[in-house]
Formats: sequence, C-alpha cells, structure tokens
Amino acid sequence: MIKAALSVLLVLVAISSAFGKYIPKTGKRIPQTLSRGWGDQLIWAQTYEEGLYWSRSKNKPLMVIFHLPDCPHSQSLKKAMADDVEIQRTLDEEFIVLNLMYETTDKHLSPDGQYVPRILFVDPSMTVRADISGRYSNRLYAYEPLTSSSWSPT
Amino acid sequence: MIKAALSVLLVLVAISSAFGKYIPKTGKRIPQTLSRGWGDQLIWAQTYEEGLYWSRSKNKPLMVIFHLPDCPHSQSLKKAMADDVEIQRTLDEEFIVLNLMYETTDKHLSPDGQYVPRILFVDPSMTVRADISGRYSNRLYAYEPLTSSSWSPT
Repeated sequence: MIKAALSVLLVLVAISSAFGKYIPKTGKRIPQTLSRGWGDQLIWAQTYEEGLYWSRSKNKPLMVIFHLPDCPHSQSLKKAMADDVEIQRTLDEEFIVLNLMYETTDKHLSPDGQYVPRILFVDPSMTVRADISGRYSNRLYAYEPLTSSSWSPT
Repeated sequence: MIKAALSVLLVLVAISSAFGKYIPKTGKRIPQTLSRGWGDQLIWAQTYEEGLYWSRSKNKPLMVIFHLPDCPHSQSLKKAMADDVEIQRTLDEEFIVLNLMYETTDKHLSPDGQYVPRILFVDPSMTVRADISGRYSNRLYAYEPLTSSSWSPT
C-alpha cells in the first residue's frame, strides 16, 4: 500500500514526461455521468452531504433515489422518469436530486429496509420525510411506473 | 414541499404522455461526469461509502481527492494528474479513486483541516493513512505539480 502510494506521489511531484492519453488495457471506456441515465439534463448532487447542502442553501426538497444497475425494476422506473418531460422539468426546477447505488450512513433513509428502487424525500430543514410514501404497504418507498390503463386512483 | 413531491409522484404513477426530451430554460447542459476532469478513463467511486466498499472488496487502497472547481491549485493539480499516463495507469490498476467537492462526515479525512486540494489514502482495512503526506509541513495532505527542473530530491 505505502509502496504504491509513494510511487504515485513520486510521479506526482516529479511529473514525468509521459504526457498523452491513457487507455486502459481492457479498452477505452465511456466516462460515467452523475445522472446514470436518470436525466442527463438535471444537475445531480454527487453525495448525500452535497445534496443536503444544496437543499438547505437553495431551499428546495431533496429527492434521493436508490437504485441498482442490475435491478429490472430500477431500470424501468429510470426509463419512465428520464423519458418524461414533465417529471424532468419538475425535478429540475423544484428539487435537488441525488441518485445512489450505495447506502449512506443515515439510517433515516431506510425507514423500512434497504431495497431498490427506493425514493426518499428530505426537507430543506434536513428532515427525512418518511411520511411521503408510495402505494405499496410492504415497501413504503418503492415506486414503479404504471401505464394509465392499469392505474386507478383510490 | 409536500405539494411539489406529490405532483412528481402523481406524474410518476400516472406516467403522462409528455414523452420527449427535456431542455432546461437556460439551455442544454453537458452531463457532469464522475471524473470531473481528473481522468475520464478511470472508474470513479461516487461516494465515500462506495469507495470504501470497493477498496475492501478489491483489496486496493482508496485515494480520496478533495478539490473545488474555482480553486486554481486544484485545477493545476487536476491537469497534471489527468495528463500523466503513468499516474493514470497506476491509479487505474492499483487504486480505488474518489474525487469530492464536499466534505464527508468522517473526520479522519481532515486530520489537519478541510482545505483543497487535499489527498488522503485509505487502506483496504478502512484505516485512513494520515501517515502518508506530502511535502508541506503546514498542510500535510496538500500536493502540487512541480516541473522536474524546480524539483530536487532531498
């Protein structure tokens, strides 16, 4: 560990002459965006701390989406949200947004467990609004896109 | 807050027919990458929790860079690191990397204050290696690129 770290630092201070473009052995990668496909035009917070900061300073609620790339429910919700102009506009203008693939240390963000997809809202006062939930009684903060034909208001 | 949240959720479950591309009033934005310019070919952790998880599971040390977009020292260090093929290769193959613009809740990541640019290393055992420091006695974890002509080994 020290050896590897020092090798980086040594290069860092000496700045070798090996300028150019680094290409990984496995081939060129497409840089990962903060949106991760949930809306490329939104300004996404990177971390929960950053989201809380922006929520407080801009006085807008924070929306936290927990998701996983290999979860089909996450993927279909993502597509529905990213493709909907009105959702994107509302989120962009009235919310601070954050999408996470890893849990935070704040237990308030998992009132009934750590499942995906899961959406929690946080007030600008930094209060997690566990009272805002979806339509499933067993997983209160799960959401899924429904076509209007299969959806009936209760 | 509730009103705005509900309006999103309502749209979420009903999925309106307003499919298309959302363009912000202020014009189209370029999606922010996780690299933030520190190396587009590296696989960046999004959060500290994610970085710790990858460090532990891949048994590689975690390098955490704190920086700010409007800090000229951060910018010059970023350019030097991103442009150096050897640094990029070492980081890609031997490290888990994370760059942050906001502080975390782990005080161990700011042993002598919260300044930028600042680089801390964390062992796969999740120990912050405060013993790995740079060349400045007043800011132990600050680094800056030096040309080889102005650098002399001690």
